[in-house]
Amino acid sequence: AQQSNVTIFGVLDVGVQRIKNGSKTLNLESIDGLQTSRLGFRGTEQLGGGLSASFHLEGAIGPDTGAGGDWRRRATVSLASKDAGELRLGRDYTPTFWNISRFNAFGTNGVGAASNLVYGFDGASGTAKTVIRSDNSVGYFLPDGLGGVYGQAMVAAGEGSTGRYVGARLGYAGNGLDVALGLSETTNTLAGDKFKVFNLGGSYAVGALKLLGLVHNSKQTTREQKNYVIGAHYNVGSGIIRVSHVNAHSRNTANGEDYTGKLFAVGYVHQLSKRTSLYTTLSKVNNSKTGRFLIPGGSAIALGDDSNGIEAGIYHSF
Amino acid sequence: AQQSNVTIFGVLDVGVQRIKNGSKTLNLESIDGLQTSRLGFRGTEQLGGGLSASFHLEGAIGPDTGAGGDWRRRATVSLASKDAGELRLGRDYTPTFWNISRFNAFGTNGVGAASNLVYGFDGASGTAKTVIRSDNSVGYFLPDGLGGVYGQAMVAAGEGSTGRYVGARLGYAGNGLDVALGLSETTNTLAGDKFKVFNLGGSYAVGALKLLGLVHNSKQTTREQKNYVIGAHYNVGSGIIRVSHVNAHSRNTANGEDYTGKLFAVGYVHQLSKRTSLYTTLSKVNNSKTGRFLIPGGSAIALGDDSNGIEAGIYHSF
Amino acid sequence: AQQSNVTIFGVLDVGVQRIKNGSKTLNLESIDGLQTSRLGFRGTEQLGGGLSASFHLEGAIGPDTGAGGDWRRRATVSLASKDAGELRLGRDYTPTFWNISRFNAFGTNGVGAASNLVYGFDGASGTAKTVIRSDNSVGYFLPDGLGGVYGQAMVAAGEGSTGRYVGARLGYAGNGLDVALGLSETTNTLAGDKFKVFNLGGSYAVGALKLLGLVHNSKQTTREQKNYVIGAHYNVGSGIIRVSHVNAHSRNTANGEDYTGKLFAVGYVHQLSKRTSLYTTLSKVNNSKTGRFLIPGGSAIALGDDSNGIEAGIYHSF
Repeated sequence: AQQSNVTIFGVLDVGVQRIKNGSKTLNLESIDGLQTSRLGFRGTEQLGGGLSASFHLEGAIGPDTGAGGDWRRRATVSLASKDAGELRLGRDYTPTFWNISRFNAFGTNGVGAASNLVYGFDGASGTAKTVIRSDNSVGYFLPDGLGGVYGQAMVAAGEGSTGRYVGARLGYAGNGLDVALGLSETTNTLAGDKFKVFNLGGSYAVGALKLLGLVHNSKQTTREQKNYVIGAHYNVGSGIIRVSHVNAHSRNTANGEDYTGKLFAVGYVHQLSKRTSLYTTLSKVNNSKTGRFLIPGGSAIALGDDSNGIEAGIYHSF
Repeated sequence: AQQSNVTIFGVLDVGVQRIKNGSKTLNLESIDGLQTSRLGFRGTEQLGGGLSASFHLEGAIGPDTGAGGDWRRRATVSLASKDAGELRLGRDYTPTFWNISRFNAFGTNGVGAASNLVYGFDGASGTAKTVIRSDNSVGYFLPDGLGGVYGQAMVAAGEGSTGRYVGARLGYAGNGLDVALGLSETTNTLAGDKFKVFNLGGSYAVGALKLLGLVHNSKQTTREQKNYVIGAHYNVGSGIIRVSHVNAHSRNTANGEDYTGKLFAVGYVHQLSKRTSLYTTLSKVNNSKTGRFLIPGGSAIALGDDSNGIEAGIYHSF
Repeated sequence: AQQSNVTIFGVLDVGVQRIKNGSKTLNLESIDGLQTSRLGFRGTEQLGGGLSASFHLEGAIGPDTGAGGDWRRRATVSLASKDAGELRLGRDYTPTFWNISRFNAFGTNGVGAASNLVYGFDGASGTAKTVIRSDNSVGYFLPDGLGGVYGQAMVAAGEGSTGRYVGARLGYAGNGLDVALGLSETTNTLAGDKFKVFNLGGSYAVGALKLLGLVHNSKQTTREQKNYVIGAHYNVGSGIIRVSHVNAHSRNTANGEDYTGKLFAVGYVHQLSKRTSLYTTLSKVNNSKTGRFLIPGGSAIALGDDSNGIEAGIYHSF
């Protein structure tokens, strides 16, 4: 009886991967070539009058080692109204994350993901806790039925430490077009320094082709990173060809650091069903003389070295 | 097929909270204003002849950060007979816990919970591992059908360390009245010191009103804490008004410590459905000159300072 | 809807246990007397043409303390064909593990398990990470319909550390007979030392009796352990009597260590249903003069001391 309230869902995505940084090659088992492996539970209760309550618990899984156990992908409770929108509390994706995910040909997963470069500064994700998700958040989502306009805003408590976040995203989707703007500010040191993100992305689908583009800038005191991303999906039968190019430029006026990384990636996804795919991706990161961008998972990289990755895997969702 | 053996259940309870200890205020996201956020699995197999086997796995969730993964709320297997009662093995609530939970207007959750003061000594829960639950336990529960009498007993192994527990609870429920007595002894240091708990609680429901009361004493060597709690629930339409008062008195004859804390709490729960509620609670702890009782989650408290808490949240169960 | 893709399954197995090593006795709550307590999720998607995709997530639970949260028993995604066999990626059991599990009267659980002695060297499991399972594995399983022949092979990446595994198992099952051979090699130090396992086991069922036997040898540089195991199951009504004898011989030519341990175990399983049993097991390990084999969980053992274990518990699966 009670069980009907709950949907179990997840992804197991495991592949084999080879990362070459400079001259050092490492063979790995990958766990998120197409999407991050995960397990989740969710459900919605209709309360009448267009009002509903819902919950969502979702945690990452590392099928290479059997890791898992938390719900740090998302752990939220919501109260939603058809007309007034959704109030959502808990750990959730930040509004500014979604443009990175939605408007890149490889999303944020695998060797070809633009996020390998654009997260935070310097290819190092986690500069701010809120690059992808935020703890202690209170979010608001616009309702459907606004003529294609969608949007969300989030505030998150720092709880006496860093991580106080304020951000929003506003977009429009219709007639094959999808564009959105994101803005945020995070208190990123105990001294109160602000980590600021601005991004603007879009996609346009016409026939078998979908074009994607993103501008993503992040900034904190003397450091700044500007990223430009373009990509495309092309449907061929039950498959999708994916290509992406990223240009990331990192500067720090305090120490004169100034370098660029360029990522080129191409991949193919073969859909065995709606739930199951085989895929392969090839990706290359070229650094400028002092650059240190890389595809994560491999050996340490020396300044200016290139980073190369190739992977093939099985994606299965449930 | 096999799935029908298992019920998935849980709670997501997230709110916003402000704790003021002395002059220091902290804003927080709370995760257990009404009940602790949790995920669980349970099931029962009928074995014939009134005999059944069952299991219960339940773990706390921290939706503010996505924490979770263990089953430390309860992890038990049971063999039960309609006539002879239930044998239960694993990690479980101690018998002496239940009076704290059942006979307080705010249960053991949120800023208004009497447990903020009565657990262990000195407002510090965890003085003994067995204040709430015990590892390595073997429990026995009386069967139904004893004319309103209920009861349970537990022994738990220390496994060569501390935590050896022996305790029991005996009660009577009928005609709106519910009273129960609890007693326990825990080996609480490697030297063999005993942590002893005695409590006696009750509730009486008449019309829309329910009165609750508890005496809870804990003792170890030279330390002792005595607590008196009174409270009430009052149903108004689809809501419940809750009020509670706690008087906690801590003494240590070894160093002359002797202080008192008083908690006053009032709250309102608005039920949107059986599964979903909105709630708010206001709570104040007044310490005597050297007291250090507090509502947990805020800044450190100075001796004699007051502790104030207010919270509002969404409770959703599944 | 989506939920029908997923089967929830698990085991809660909790008992009371007494381990006596030398003269030191310890009382414990056990969590795997018959099978390891666990929770899992699995599902299979038919892709047409005899092809299927499936996933399996399974993690151990410690109901004595409520431990849990990972999926380190097994976390795999598979693509399988009725004719060509199964490709399986993720963390999984090694091929060489299965002979230890299948051809011992007590499997690998409880005080009577042969694995208490045969794992790794010197009764110490974990000498190599791959004694039971392997991270980062790619496995292949022969299809059904090969006239009783079954088999599997696995390679696992070391990912720049130890744990690179290559192994296989080949067997035949039919007419009450089941025999299988296992072989593996694991890179077990950063210097490249090889941990090698060879085992050959079998069982033969005739009427109410099943006989089981195993030879299991492991070797690394100067260390070697040879194990012989024999055992039997005898069905009596809804119960099974189990007996086992293990002879383990450990040698290290580098330091002259040379000792033997013998395990004798007898137990009874009473099946209340297909899903639920009560059981008890008695086990004794006798060491030669410098031996240090033991039943795990008790106090430390002195060279040459005996180790004794007795346990009784409830097993419930779902």
